[in-house]
Amino acid sequence: MQDQNPDLFNLAMSEKARPLMDAVQAHIDQNVVPISDEFNALDAEKEDRWTWHPRQLELLDGAKAKAKESGLWNFFLPDSEFGEGLSNLDYAYIAAELGKYPLASETLNCSAPDTGNMEVLERVGTAAQQEKWLKPLLNGEIRSAYAMTEPGLPSSDAKNISTSAVLENGEWVINGEKFYISGAGDPRCKIMIVMVKTSPDAAPHKQQSQILVPKDTPGVEILEGMEVFGEDHAPRGHMHIKFNNVRVPEENILLGEGRGFEISQLRLGPGRIHHCMRSIGKAEKALELMVRRGATRDAFGKPLIKLGGNLEKVSRARIEINAMRLAVLQAAKAMDVLGNKEARVYISAVKAMVPEKVCQIIDDAIQIHGATGVSQWTPLASLYADIRHLRFADGPDEVHHMVVGRAEVQGYDLW
Amino acid sequence: MQDQNPDLFNLAMSEKARPLMDAVQAHIDQNVVPISDEFNALDAEKEDRWTWHPRQLELLDGAKAKAKESGLWNFFLPDSEFGEGLSNLDYAYIAAELGKYPLASETLNCSAPDTGNMEVLERVGTAAQQEKWLKPLLNGEIRSAYAMTEPGLPSSDAKNISTSAVLENGEWVINGEKFYISGAGDPRCKIMIVMVKTSPDAAPHKQQSQILVPKDTPGVEILEGMEVFGEDHAPRGHMHIKFNNVRVPEENILLGEGRGFEISQLRLGPGRIHHCMRSIGKAEKALELMVRRGATRDAFGKPLIKLGGNLEKVSRARIEINAMRLAVLQAAKAMDVLGNKEARVYISAVKAMVPEKVCQIIDDAIQIHGATGVSQWTPLASLYADIRHLRFADGPDEVHHMVVGRAEVQGYDLW
Amino acid sequence: MQDQNPDLFNLAMSEKARPLMDAVQAHIDQNVVPISDEFNALDAEKEDRWTWHPRQLELLDGAKAKAKESGLWNFFLPDSEFGEGLSNLDYAYIAAELGKYPLASETLNCSAPDTGNMEVLERVGTAAQQEKWLKPLLNGEIRSAYAMTEPGLPSSDAKNISTSAVLENGEWVINGEKFYISGAGDPRCKIMIVMVKTSPDAAPHKQQSQILVPKDTPGVEILEGMEVFGEDHAPRGHMHIKFNNVRVPEENILLGEGRGFEISQLRLGPGRIHHCMRSIGKAEKALELMVRRGATRDAFGKPLIKLGGNLEKVSRARIEINAMRLAVLQAAKAMDVLGNKEARVYISAVKAMVPEKVCQIIDDAIQIHGATGVSQWTPLASLYADIRHLRFADGPDEVHHMVVGRAEVQGYDLW
Amino acid sequence: MQDQNPDLFNLAMSEKARPLMDAVQAHIDQNVVPISDEFNALDAEKEDRWTWHPRQLELLDGAKAKAKESGLWNFFLPDSEFGEGLSNLDYAYIAAELGKYPLASETLNCSAPDTGNMEVLERVGTAAQQEKWLKPLLNGEIRSAYAMTEPGLPSSDAKNISTSAVLENGEWVINGEKFYISGAGDPRCKIMIVMVKTSPDAAPHKQQSQILVPKDTPGVEILEGMEVFGEDHAPRGHMHIKFNNVRVPEENILLGEGRGFEISQLRLGPGRIHHCMRSIGKAEKALELMVRRGATRDAFGKPLIKLGGNLEKVSRARIEINAMRLAVLQAAKAMDVLGNKEARVYISAVKAMVPEKVCQIIDDAIQIHGATGVSQWTPLASLYADIRHLRFADGPDEVHHMVVGRAEVQGYDLW
Repeated sequence: MQDQNPDLFNLAMSEKARPLMDAVQAHIDQNVVPISDEFNALDAEKEDRWTWHPRQLELLDGAKAKAKESGLWNFFLPDSEFGEGLSNLDYAYIAAELGKYPLASETLNCSAPDTGNMEVLERVGTAAQQEKWLKPLLNGEIRSAYAMTEPGLPSSDAKNISTSAVLENGEWVINGEKFYISGAGDPRCKIMIVMVKTSPDAAPHKQQSQILVPKDTPGVEILEGMEVFGEDHAPRGHMHIKFNNVRVPEENILLGEGRGFEISQLRLGPGRIHHCMRSIGKAEKALELMVRRGATRDAFGKPLIKLGGNLEKVSRARIEINAMRLAVLQAAKAMDVLGNKEARVYISAVKAMVPEKVCQIIDDAIQIHGATGVSQWTPLASLYADIRHLRFADGPDEVHHMVVGRAEVQGYDLW
Repeated sequence: MQDQNPDLFNLAMSEKARPLMDAVQAHIDQNVVPISDEFNALDAEKEDRWTWHPRQLELLDGAKAKAKESGLWNFFLPDSEFGEGLSNLDYAYIAAELGKYPLASETLNCSAPDTGNMEVLERVGTAAQQEKWLKPLLNGEIRSAYAMTEPGLPSSDAKNISTSAVLENGEWVINGEKFYISGAGDPRCKIMIVMVKTSPDAAPHKQQSQILVPKDTPGVEILEGMEVFGEDHAPRGHMHIKFNNVRVPEENILLGEGRGFEISQLRLGPGRIHHCMRSIGKAEKALELMVRRGATRDAFGKPLIKLGGNLEKVSRARIEINAMRLAVLQAAKAMDVLGNKEARVYISAVKAMVPEKVCQIIDDAIQIHGATGVSQWTPLASLYADIRHLRFADGPDEVHHMVVGRAEVQGYDLW
Repeated sequence: MQDQNPDLFNLAMSEKARPLMDAVQAHIDQNVVPISDEFNALDAEKEDRWTWHPRQLELLDGAKAKAKESGLWNFFLPDSEFGEGLSNLDYAYIAAELGKYPLASETLNCSAPDTGNMEVLERVGTAAQQEKWLKPLLNGEIRSAYAMTEPGLPSSDAKNISTSAVLENGEWVINGEKFYISGAGDPRCKIMIVMVKTSPDAAPHKQQSQILVPKDTPGVEILEGMEVFGEDHAPRGHMHIKFNNVRVPEENILLGEGRGFEISQLRLGPGRIHHCMRSIGKAEKALELMVRRGATRDAFGKPLIKLGGNLEKVSRARIEINAMRLAVLQAAKAMDVLGNKEARVYISAVKAMVPEKVCQIIDDAIQIHGATGVSQWTPLASLYADIRHLRFADGPDEVHHMVVGRAEVQGYDLW
Repeated sequence: MQDQNPDLFNLAMSEKARPLMDAVQAHIDQNVVPISDEFNALDAEKEDRWTWHPRQLELLDGAKAKAKESGLWNFFLPDSEFGEGLSNLDYAYIAAELGKYPLASETLNCSAPDTGNMEVLERVGTAAQQEKWLKPLLNGEIRSAYAMTEPGLPSSDAKNISTSAVLENGEWVINGEKFYISGAGDPRCKIMIVMVKTSPDAAPHKQQSQILVPKDTPGVEILEGMEVFGEDHAPRGHMHIKFNNVRVPEENILLGEGRGFEISQLRLGPGRIHHCMRSIGKAEKALELMVRRGATRDAFGKPLIKLGGNLEKVSRARIEINAMRLAVLQAAKAMDVLGNKEARVYISAVKAMVPEKVCQIIDDAIQIHGATGVSQWTPLASLYADIRHLRFADGPDEVHHMVVGRAEVQGYDLW
């Protein structure tokens, strides 16, 4: 991260991407914002929390159709025959905007974890795997999940994964438990990529594989929805799933036995950048709410924002948001310029930096709202829970700090 | 707070209170811990979230009966004919213990806001008011609420309360809205003390009164349960209530017109101390979970607690908890020695200090748990939400810091 | 600061400036590093602390001559006939490098406060003023000072300046006190620009003027050298100066009566950017020392850097340094793209952000060194003192936060 | 530190000590404050910075004589035939007061490191050692030093001490280097206790011994005064000393070979408590200056203290000071009740807590003073340097956090 390569400092959106950015903003204004209130209100009308209300799907599908018409579809895929060929840098700008509107990403077929799953399938899937799963995903017909985290395991040490897959008669037989499998509760979710241990005797980084498991395979047992600060995000959910002798064909493996970590590297870089940029969009939202509330409520005869240290909190939020944005853009640019592998330290740096700081900004916004700030009347509590969760999803802060710290020390060649 | 009075430094529990403390701990072990799992599991069995399951009430009433038998009942009332005559200091010790067990306070008839309401009724209620409301409260037959916060108002400036009460034909006619009225959802809640504006033309601190309003009075409309980080704590709830021409007899006023603030002073001191001590109990709980998790989960071949800065986080939590405990004990002692009014600055100091620091400790405990830390599998997310809420309940941190800061400056007599 | 102008995101050094950057680095390696130890050791040989040792000047002049030969001279002046015409962005890159070597700036005739003074003289000086003072400054023959801060005045509120200048018989008669006048102790310092109040009855921002005062004018009384954490930086010093009926010709005024603030705006923008970039260079230096010490000292059988939270501290330092660098580059770019006035908020943002964070990084580096970290054996204590001083020089952090906070609120047009 | 022993919560000064406290305050007012300005001004008059001005010693000796007359002498020694028999708790109260006045401790013969050295000699010295060194120390006729820290060694790991002592012909022959030997520059310093390695083959904690070395022994070479943020505190100094074949009689060893660590335990407990309480006195001083400055300087038409977050900073300082005071008093009480060994965790807790927080308070006080805050016009920079140094003296914060963290984990018996 001491690279002085001037290319790493040109963080402007490309000429080519600017009209796309404008189109995305127009799409949000015309197709996302107008449906959001109705969509959210329908949650209360559903009989079963773990389904969608038919009208919700109608609204969503309508917005998706409009996005597809306008060519705003699948542009998350960098340099691909399927997508727009956006660079990571250009996509990062768009992700920040999407982060402000909970429904926006899905209307553009750009929501996690589908984006990562599609990227993986596009890069390493066989023709048959692509035909069967990538195609409907790219069309927005089905959704998917990525099953990595296990309840018995610190999220900091992925090498210890204990869910096993054993090859028997041309089938992988999978046993184990995964939890916090986001999106797996969605009735439209049809396929999961599952990280398993296939080769317990290989070198530590070669023991894992990734296998495609259709959600309706016998033995896939959804135990419960995990909560994040009391919220289970039904019907998408963060599911706790048990794999009881789940059998899938041998050819469902991705890339090959023992290559699970290799695939992770592929997906994690862009995913983390997207998360970080969406988080920055959420921080912008929180700052906006903090300013609006503070400027329009009075106490002791003055707008709240002018009392005590409140205006300094606004300043600190703005300063940190702008610095974080530049840092994430630089990490995206590093992926474009240096490749995902070399950009690894930049990515860990922003993954360790952004969610922690954004939590603080949202927390400050909550405090200026008083009790309203933790209520259902503002999105702040929900934003907080999302971002707080990010501080261990895809590796906890501590592990990313280790990556950055070690790279720094190695830069001096002292040992 | 620069008082060198040696009495303020003797923070030991009195000889007299020690057997009581032991009895409370025995009660928790024998009567509270054994029922807690069943009690909590019954939440999922209820048809209506806003009721209690009959078996839940049976469990609770059983524990209450046992506490009453052992004489562990109403001891929150300092120097009273009704209670044990515990000093604030002695009660503070017990409150910390109660804070670790969500059901404990209620089994001893010592839960907020009943404690504050009973204290107010005991100090300023008329004989008739005491007969009608204090008696069943002291017996644990009914529960109560305290309606102060309003949705349109910064919680920092209580003088602006807008709910009005006008005297018409021997009745107070009340109009306005209150929210975050904790406990008002409980079917057993029968009576509310409502802060209203009765005298808009009086001096700013003389405009408010407190009036007893039975929950079933016509015109009392419960609009919804307010959430705290997505959790509504049904059936107790934090209710949003509209008062539509609610009429109660003139004699339902407490102490007299324009004396609402005076009553607040009475209730807020002990209430804040209790909150702070219970918070310290919760911090102890979080620290225990942090240590247990950290010591029993491995990553990279070591217990988590030995990795990176984790052990330092444990140390910092212990150091802060011990210092906070001493500070809260001193504030309780200041109430005993100096009286509630003179102790005001000590109380604000701990109210500004404790919830903020406890949030940090719980947050550190969450981080070491990974996703489990925000899930329903540990109490941490719920503890966090409770304590985070405390940072504006009973006055936001900022207002308490103003009280302490101003007192400090006035100590120098510079202006 | 929510400007999405893509030009503000291209932060790469220009093609044109890259060879200059290389030349500066070569100059540092060849001409600055080799003389530094001897230069510093000579401090102990001087009879009078408030003079230079003749050999010190010889070393310095030698390095200056070499820089001039290589054309590395006065390039701080943006878009000027005198300088290299570097943009603020390009200069910012160079300033970070200069910040690592205490002697480097001066060898290139690029040290504060001369840079600001030369820039002011170049922009607003009359031909006569330029001939008399700008020319020898550009040649590196003399040095200068800027007398702004007053002992009786909070540094946060420049409008209250009390040093007066009254016009009498074609002369300004100046009375008052200034302190922390950096560089005024240097025997080579010949001229000061002094901020005075000339028009006490004008509008608050039109009362001040700036006047050229030769240091040897009768009545200029140097009272003492002010210290920064016990260090007086003799012979340059931070002087406390009394003006006793100091008389200078009427034409010594810059730009005109009542235009003092206008001139400040001109100088402060670039000056603050330079300070911030040099601070980042100093943070890089501190981080390097932190890593070297941590990696080469053992305790409890391991390198210090691997103990407890030390590696995370390294990571946090690297992350913050990289984000700060991008933020300062963007502020410099904002000056290039939007002009100094419009860039004002960007400049305040980095002035409020950088010194505070760099203090923390240096402090962490100190801690890992133990007592050596505050000793004369490392530059850390001295770096800390310099940067700590910056937190009020050119406006305290708090004032810059107000600028940023207010601009943010105004962006919403709520009042 | 989860001990609920009620004795640990009675932190009031004893009846017996109160008149002593009053007498100390009277002594400070009458004998210390009146001489301080003259004493300090004489620093500038000395020809050799490493001597005292005769008038300085005259002033000091005068105040010492008055203290001795009033019986305020040597009361630091707990439970001793020589001292007042003050408990650690009682002494802690007095130490806080002494911390506010740089000269106060010495006038009472209670300054570090003499206090620790006298305590060690009193507890473990032979009759001959006591006659020769303890007696003149108790009389205030000579001063002493404690030589522990070595330049090549992280201060966190005392076991690695490399200065060697080898027994040859009835003499210890000492070789090695020590630095930051506080007080060793004082011409009145006659004796040093030197920590050496005598038994390199013993168990790690049995290799060290402590030996009495008169400062004028041949081979004791004082290399230079070490600085703390640019200040060398001449003539007391923090000396860098080389031991070149220094020979002292075999009987100069304290307690016996290999018992160096045992003696350290003895001295470090009380010393750390005294440091912490004096630090709290210094924090009180800084807070007082912060309030006085803030209340009497205006900016933007208001006292500084009322601007932005300043009043909250005052509140936070007061809150932390009061909590720290209680924590240190409890640690002192733990020494009285549990003994130094059992109190070890309490002592580490306050040593890790206090200097860090006090640094922050002084830093806030500096910020409100602007440049004056780091100048020679206030004691703040010097207070900051002292307390910052404490964060590694007697073990760095990190080591004390390890002690507390480990004790906490062991409390659960999980391993």
